[in-house]
Amino acid sequence: MFIDRLIESIQEKNNPTVVGLDPKIEYVPEFIRERSFKEYGANLKGASEAIISFNKMLIDSIYDQVPAVKPQLAYYEMYGVDGIHAFDETCKYAKGKGLLVIADGKRNDIGTTAEAYSKAFLGITAVDQEIKEKAFDVDALTVSPYLGEDGVKPFIDDCINNNKGIFVLVKTSNKSSGQLQDLVTNDGKSIYEIMAEYVNVWGKPVTGKYGYSSVGAVVGATYPNQAKLLRSIMKKAYILVPGYGAQGGTARDCANSFNRDKLGAIVNASRSVMCAYKSDMWKNEYSAERFAEASRAEVIRMKNDLNAALESL
Amino acid sequence: MFIDRLIESIQEKNNPTVVGLDPKIEYVPEFIRERSFKEYGANLKGASEAIISFNKMLIDSIYDQVPAVKPQLAYYEMYGVDGIHAFDETCKYAKGKGLLVIADGKRNDIGTTAEAYSKAFLGITAVDQEIKEKAFDVDALTVSPYLGEDGVKPFIDDCINNNKGIFVLVKTSNKSSGQLQDLVTNDGKSIYEIMAEYVNVWGKPVTGKYGYSSVGAVVGATYPNQAKLLRSIMKKAYILVPGYGAQGGTARDCANSFNRDKLGAIVNASRSVMCAYKSDMWKNEYSAERFAEASRAEVIRMKNDLNAALESL
Repeated sequence: MFIDRLIESIQEKNNPTVVGLDPKIEYVPEFIRERSFKEYGANLKGASEAIISFNKMLIDSIYDQVPAVKPQLAYYEMYGVDGIHAFDETCKYAKGKGLLVIADGKRNDIGTTAEAYSKAFLGITAVDQEIKEKAFDVDALTVSPYLGEDGVKPFIDDCINNNKGIFVLVKTSNKSSGQLQDLVTNDGKSIYEIMAEYVNVWGKPVTGKYGYSSVGAVVGATYPNQAKLLRSIMKKAYILVPGYGAQGGTARDCANSFNRDKLGAIVNASRSVMCAYKSDMWKNEYSAERFAEASRAEVIRMKNDLNAALESL
Repeated sequence: MFIDRLIESIQEKNNPTVVGLDPKIEYVPEFIRERSFKEYGANLKGASEAIISFNKMLIDSIYDQVPAVKPQLAYYEMYGVDGIHAFDETCKYAKGKGLLVIADGKRNDIGTTAEAYSKAFLGITAVDQEIKEKAFDVDALTVSPYLGEDGVKPFIDDCINNNKGIFVLVKTSNKSSGQLQDLVTNDGKSIYEIMAEYVNVWGKPVTGKYGYSSVGAVVGATYPNQAKLLRSIMKKAYILVPGYGAQGGTARDCANSFNRDKLGAIVNASRSVMCAYKSDMWKNEYSAERFAEASRAEVIRMKNDLNAALESL
């Protein structure tokens, strides 16, 4: 089951974090960009190939330290068909290194269309009556819940049938997340509480051997009070926590999303790891040529930061 | 402005409909599939090339009758990188025939990531400081509002700067749409009403010369009473209406989403047009080889059906 594999990998690496792979071309060091533009042209193809090189070097440098990576589809779609090729190559490479891959796509649609999305990422596509192929090969997908249960159910079916996972948006890390998510209904509950209760129901059929479900939730580190409440509502959901680092969430804020067993959450960092070589913390120590070492140093720093915050739980 | 172009094309063709291009491989007639599998292999590439052929023949047959097409991204992602190539080819071909293209992706994310999605579909991607390229070339995109305003704003900026449009999910056509969208807040309003009010606010800066905004809304034909209410709240939003035909919505149901000026809505049909050659209505008249003629006949039938319902408004 997805969630068991995730927990075992977190425990093996003693690291409840996931590295977001959101590679804007300007994050990629110049020497990689130049090489790629020379070979493929200064165009979407060249940018996409530069991103592939960057991601592979980054993965090579961190795969023994982190359990999972989370490529954000928007940053690949931005480079068109070539960008989607870069997404595909990145997922394959990461899986080849033993990493779990969480595709961040926040997909959502009515039932039959959600089924197509689920086939794309978590299932398998029928080419004809006999031949089936995987479109993309990832372990989990983020899902947006605006359409309700019949838009989520097809993904859960693939969680059951193919040992995959999903993370449902509950309380997102952005400033305006409250506009919809914090609205209070006439029975006194907020939308994010109601969504959390659905996550519990949806997650039951895919509970793994450690008591956690392969249907997880997204709860931003930037709202620590809501995170505490949501942790208490969704006791068995793994919480994917964005908002650490660049967005302002601290390790202590993130700790609110964990249970007493020090499990139950996985914290994402994207920019702070990918651009570590440009950061005040690491730029004097590592040149752009050594960007991957800077990312590794940041991954280890973040791991220790989080584990220290978890010790004090 | 997007919305002016849409209205002018609707008026020119006297047809307030959009054809959804959601091409499951089993919708594609066997003679196209076989030809493509022979040339490219019975794999995702062969399926994607079959879909391109199917879409092009379909577009050739209907482009003088309909103002717009709406490719649903899920049905292209399902075929992997090759599927995204098919999406791209389809968009380019449709635009070459003078059709407006509405990409149905229901994209949503926090601000910086929504910006990347918007660049992908409505904007332009910087390859370096001087070179910019379009990732995909569409006219409008569907957007999901779970993250609130800062997740929608980047798309609106591209509506302003690049003359593009968006359709924000308000009340979707599926059975479980009410689970979240019908919840009533403590001030007595439903979520879909509140979203409709946001659509009004978000749409103001992109109001065109006919008084309608390039920020539209998605309201399913399957909920005619809510559609009436939402029409009255969002007087200036163009409403994209899914649910006609295969999902059970009638022309009279759809008419609820129009204004007295017979403008204000565009009705989508996907399966009923794409698979017209398999339908009880047309299968005796058209063989699979003549699928595109069947689709044209269905497009004209639907146009007349809708226009008759609008006459009785």
